[in-house]
Amino acid sequence: MTEAQTIGAASKEAWYSLAALSTEQKNACLSLLHDALLEQEAYLLAENEKDLAAGRKKGLSAALLDRLALTPQRIAAMAQGVLDIIALPDPVGRVQELKRMPNGLLVGRMQVPIGSILIIYEARPNVTVDAFALCFKSGNATVLKGGSEAVHSNMALVSVIAGALDAAGIDRRVVQYVESSDRAVTNELLTLNEYLDLVIPRGGEGLIRAVSTTATMPVIKHYKGVCHVYVDSGADLETAKAIAVNAKVQRPGVCNAMETLLVHADVAREFLPAVRDALCACNVSLRGCDKTLSVLMGIEPATEDDWYTEYLDLILSIRVVSGIDEAIDHINRYGSHHSDAIVTKDYARGMRFLREVDSSAVYINASTRFTDGAEFGLGAEIGISTDKIHARGPMGLEELTCAKWIVFGDGQIRA
Amino acid sequence: MTEAQTIGAASKEAWYSLAALSTEQKNACLSLLHDALLEQEAYLLAENEKDLAAGRKKGLSAALLDRLALTPQRIAAMAQGVLDIIALPDPVGRVQELKRMPNGLLVGRMQVPIGSILIIYEARPNVTVDAFALCFKSGNATVLKGGSEAVHSNMALVSVIAGALDAAGIDRRVVQYVESSDRAVTNELLTLNEYLDLVIPRGGEGLIRAVSTTATMPVIKHYKGVCHVYVDSGADLETAKAIAVNAKVQRPGVCNAMETLLVHADVAREFLPAVRDALCACNVSLRGCDKTLSVLMGIEPATEDDWYTEYLDLILSIRVVSGIDEAIDHINRYGSHHSDAIVTKDYARGMRFLREVDSSAVYINASTRFTDGAEFGLGAEIGISTDKIHARGPMGLEELTCAKWIVFGDGQIRA
Repeated sequence: MTEAQTIGAASKEAWYSLAALSTEQKNACLSLLHDALLEQEAYLLAENEKDLAAGRKKGLSAALLDRLALTPQRIAAMAQGVLDIIALPDPVGRVQELKRMPNGLLVGRMQVPIGSILIIYEARPNVTVDAFALCFKSGNATVLKGGSEAVHSNMALVSVIAGALDAAGIDRRVVQYVESSDRAVTNELLTLNEYLDLVIPRGGEGLIRAVSTTATMPVIKHYKGVCHVYVDSGADLETAKAIAVNAKVQRPGVCNAMETLLVHADVAREFLPAVRDALCACNVSLRGCDKTLSVLMGIEPATEDDWYTEYLDLILSIRVVSGIDEAIDHINRYGSHHSDAIVTKDYARGMRFLREVDSSAVYINASTRFTDGAEFGLGAEIGISTDKIHARGPMGLEELTCAKWIVFGDGQIRA
Repeated sequence: MTEAQTIGAASKEAWYSLAALSTEQKNACLSLLHDALLEQEAYLLAENEKDLAAGRKKGLSAALLDRLALTPQRIAAMAQGVLDIIALPDPVGRVQELKRMPNGLLVGRMQVPIGSILIIYEARPNVTVDAFALCFKSGNATVLKGGSEAVHSNMALVSVIAGALDAAGIDRRVVQYVESSDRAVTNELLTLNEYLDLVIPRGGEGLIRAVSTTATMPVIKHYKGVCHVYVDSGADLETAKAIAVNAKVQRPGVCNAMETLLVHADVAREFLPAVRDALCACNVSLRGCDKTLSVLMGIEPATEDDWYTEYLDLILSIRVVSGIDEAIDHINRYGSHHSDAIVTKDYARGMRFLREVDSSAVYINASTRFTDGAEFGLGAEIGISTDKIHARGPMGLEELTCAKWIVFGDGQIRA
């Protein structure tokens, strides 16, 4: 067996024992993990320092080094995250309804774990614990492959997890870390759909596209977040300005930040100068369509490419539209089906926007920045999906399970 | 644009108009389709005769010709199927719950159509109408590619559908048929994930594997049905015999028929001769493990390969197991995660089987033959999935939708 096959087969085998654990057993193990993370702070910091030293030598940017760094506060936050997951309800085994069929069969669906999940992510050690804990609580085995810059930190975290599993008497192969930096191992894992049931890639668009092309098992992903705010005719312009500024600048580097502002022609003359002043005060540079430029003289023209672009930066493209039809068309055509908002006072247009915008999260009169597991009440999220099957938007414990049919009979046979 | 791109782009464009239709509008169109199918019986039979003539010339088997053939009864059944779909509740737009978050946002999920669905299927004209009607009712555009032996029948059916769409004032591009027999067109369609959101292949395992490998959009599929009945220690052996015989012989050529019978060692001596007699009376040939052979002298030995095999025929493999652990292990290892049943009087073992067998449908004391959209109360099914994400088991209208997040605000921004 190859290295990848060994990992895959072990994961599937270990999974069957995990799937049968009770919520209490899983929570007891997570509680041990919480304690172990805090107790082994010194060890984790020392291993992390090896990655940081290598990263500095390699010339990683300050931003990347910051993402890579563990601190006592960050370790405490990780441990707290584990406690938060303990507190979440376990979806496994839930049956919402059993229907009695005419022949007396009781038929329903039971939430069950998906199986073995491969998670491929960037050099962020906090994802290691978070992804494990979410998958474990929902009864899934995990195979983790983090960015190679974080290998010492991740191996240390996985050894702390393995210690907690051992102490709880649970097969430690329910989490495995792909230590090899050989891309071929990961690529082979992506073809082992007999062992691995799902892959969740987290990271840049290039990585996610490469994973999607190679993987033979289902992939849950989001490529990017090209999010919009549409300011409708007759909207309250103070509200619109507050939402637009928040959606753009509150945290511009994340996927639910606004990249394009759409403004109804009726309010363009009044709204655009006001929002420009507010955005410029936050150092946002603007690019506009022709109509925008006729109001906001001197800003850069937007190209066709701008409408597709996720800036992840203090840049905003602005387009003036003739109405809600053009706004919805623009969003469905150029957007990434992530998060989009309308600011309106009109009931019918608000409801149309809600129905017709084909995105994972659609808002009336609120900032797109709320697309997040915690903000949506999921407690924690494993990622955000812009796919259209299984899960859209923030994915929590529930989305890490699936529903199988269960049937209670008393000897029924089919006629 | 290539032929495939033209089809894909038209499908996505037409979909947006379909997604916005009300249930009444969709039902009115389906009602027109129902009438048109009956009115155009002569035309449909004449076009079908072209396929049958070509099929006879090509030397298609009697079974294939039978699947291909339309008759007045079959056309009436198709039309009735459309009426049945009209009667089903429309899942689109349903919101089960809105939660009020601490900041006042109302957050929930709305069922929405998936988008454009590519359906690749064998030479069965009835699938054309059935798949269209299910996808249409659930707000999805379809691109249909049926087996080339049925091209005249399918084109005729699609032209009847197009007539109903025209009469209802709906963009007829919500259904398109891939007329070209050039495999390259279909293969290119499978890479157009910017236009097509899902592919559902129906047919043999080879076709389904080829589609899965090529497709860049999600695939919902089931490869095969290697289904089991496990007869537990202490089971009522008359019930067990009735279930085993029904699961094997009531319709052996379908995916939810039993292929392997697992028998607890405690009851093997009593049960095996009785079930053999009943099965042999139905012309089933048996293959057994060593322990089975020691009771049922003279039957063929089963090889390792038999445990993986979907016979789709009057053949059954039998294995004697030491208990429920071995039974569950066998099913999870060799089975296809389709439909599996335990026959037992023991409450705890029944519940364990339900939880731990990793299949789309798990039964206590009933025949596996019930895995079916109609039997499970879905009304109609587009297929059966053995995948683990989005949908497992029979897929009805509900499974042709997904849930997006909707958020009602009154100006909330993120702090």
